[in-house]
Amino acid sequence: MDNLIKSVAITGGTHGNELTGVHLIKHWQSNIDKVERPSFSTELHIANPKANKAVRRYIDQDLNRQFSLEDLNNAELTGCEQQQAKLLNTLLGPKDDPRVDFIIDLHTTTANMGMSLIFNSSDPLVVGMAFYIKQKMPHATLFFEPSERLENNFLTSVGRLSGFLIEVGPIAQGLLNYQVYAETQEAVMHALDYLEMKNTGQPVALPAQMPGYQFTKKVSLPVDENGGISAMVHPNLQNQDYQAIHPGDPLFITLAGETIVYDGDSTVYGAFINEAAYYDQKVGLSFMEEMTIDLDMNA
Amino acid sequence: MDNLIKSVAITGGTHGNELTGVHLIKHWQSNIDKVERPSFSTELHIANPKANKAVRRYIDQDLNRQFSLEDLNNAELTGCEQQQAKLLNTLLGPKDDPRVDFIIDLHTTTANMGMSLIFNSSDPLVVGMAFYIKQKMPHATLFFEPSERLENNFLTSVGRLSGFLIEVGPIAQGLLNYQVYAETQEAVMHALDYLEMKNTGQPVALPAQMPGYQFTKKVSLPVDENGGISAMVHPNLQNQDYQAIHPGDPLFITLAGETIVYDGDSTVYGAFINEAAYYDQKVGLSFMEEMTIDLDMNA
Repeated sequence: MDNLIKSVAITGGTHGNELTGVHLIKHWQSNIDKVERPSFSTELHIANPKANKAVRRYIDQDLNRQFSLEDLNNAELTGCEQQQAKLLNTLLGPKDDPRVDFIIDLHTTTANMGMSLIFNSSDPLVVGMAFYIKQKMPHATLFFEPSERLENNFLTSVGRLSGFLIEVGPIAQGLLNYQVYAETQEAVMHALDYLEMKNTGQPVALPAQMPGYQFTKKVSLPVDENGGISAMVHPNLQNQDYQAIHPGDPLFITLAGETIVYDGDSTVYGAFINEAAYYDQKVGLSFMEEMTIDLDMNA
Repeated sequence: MDNLIKSVAITGGTHGNELTGVHLIKHWQSNIDKVERPSFSTELHIANPKANKAVRRYIDQDLNRQFSLEDLNNAELTGCEQQQAKLLNTLLGPKDDPRVDFIIDLHTTTANMGMSLIFNSSDPLVVGMAFYIKQKMPHATLFFEPSERLENNFLTSVGRLSGFLIEVGPIAQGLLNYQVYAETQEAVMHALDYLEMKNTGQPVALPAQMPGYQFTKKVSLPVDENGGISAMVHPNLQNQDYQAIHPGDPLFITLAGETIVYDGDSTVYGAFINEAAYYDQKVGLSFMEEMTIDLDMNA
């Protein structure tokens, strides 16, 4: 495979109420020099303008779950975001022979996940981008969620290399916070600098391994007999993303104040703890496992 | 005026994406003894069920701006929340001769306002409730926004005594946080205990004065030539609700990172700093002034 990157897309507002990416895109549209690099072209897109106008995550479906090749090719899927996914696939892909090499998609979360770098590919160029950003921003967390590109349903999977999500929190939906905005911008600058160095053969010194986390499962919020939420994230767990959860540790607390503990038998790590966007699925957090990520997983 | 309180209504979900009040109402509906007191009746209402189901602040209009007597009597106002206001007025009022004596309305904010007790009336029973809660919860802030009851457009103004908003933050829209939930519950318990003591002639020792804040004006977010937000709350101001803002202090920072300072000539205090719900009006914060609140303002 030709590893030269000729075309990069930066997308924001894939979730319409995550305003940070939207306003960075708008800012860069008026200051294009910030995202241009000599060896490749950069394009900027607000991914879900209708949802952004409504300041909602989505109108009909979560846009960032609509990009599997199967769904893109399914003419019966005609909801607002299903149509928008097909339009973005035409614009950036098509997924089975993409025009764009690499997509960087900008997200925020209500969870205390700091600067999280989420990637689905083990390609050393992709993993190396995460390593490079973490070298520059040591507080960043590497979040590996392996997935076959054509089956993956994220927007970033439309690029030739399954790309990269920059996910920053905690921040409420529907507002801007300068720290989150500035950190997201800094991470994008490092990502573009990294691609420029790789493209032009400049040496990029990266470790062979870095610590990170891998998604294992979603954990549901407790519900009552009517399906309503009957418990919330326990205060001991709130804001403790990427910290260890041991057997017997509190997970939830009921509306009446009773603690519900983790009844597993191995230590896990939480992420997306109390993410507002997952309340529609009544998901309280994700469980992760610690892992050592290899720069070249096939070596 | 007969100062006995015979009927109290507690309302939550007036803004449909503020879930704390909704879940407290649901919890108390199954545990009615928590909100019952011998000397008065307590009723519980989810004020905007349609907006709550959609997890949006409102469907057509902000419900908590629809309760002026003039608007309630205007048959031409037929939007979703305008109709809902008329229904609540029938249920709890009517405003010009209310069935319910006192309404406690539960709210949350994305701003770092802690436990804020917002009241529009100088009636000593209302002011005394705020004083009593602050005695029990000293970190609470008294937020006085004087307004003539029949002109006031808040839900709480439908009660015989213009009531009381309990506004807690910071919390993102669309989620629950146990600390916010538990603090809100505690404040309501104190409010009900206070009414019970007043009703039954038990002595309630309150100071003659307490410190607080009074609303002065809303401050707009800077916008570009297309009306889009061009600056956000300055990081020095973020989370600094109820702290002094001196002339020359930073207020906003542009998308390009340039600071915009407060150009007034007197010290003010901020509240509702970076409240997500006010982005639709492009409001960045409220200015407040410090004040000493008298328990009996007519004494």
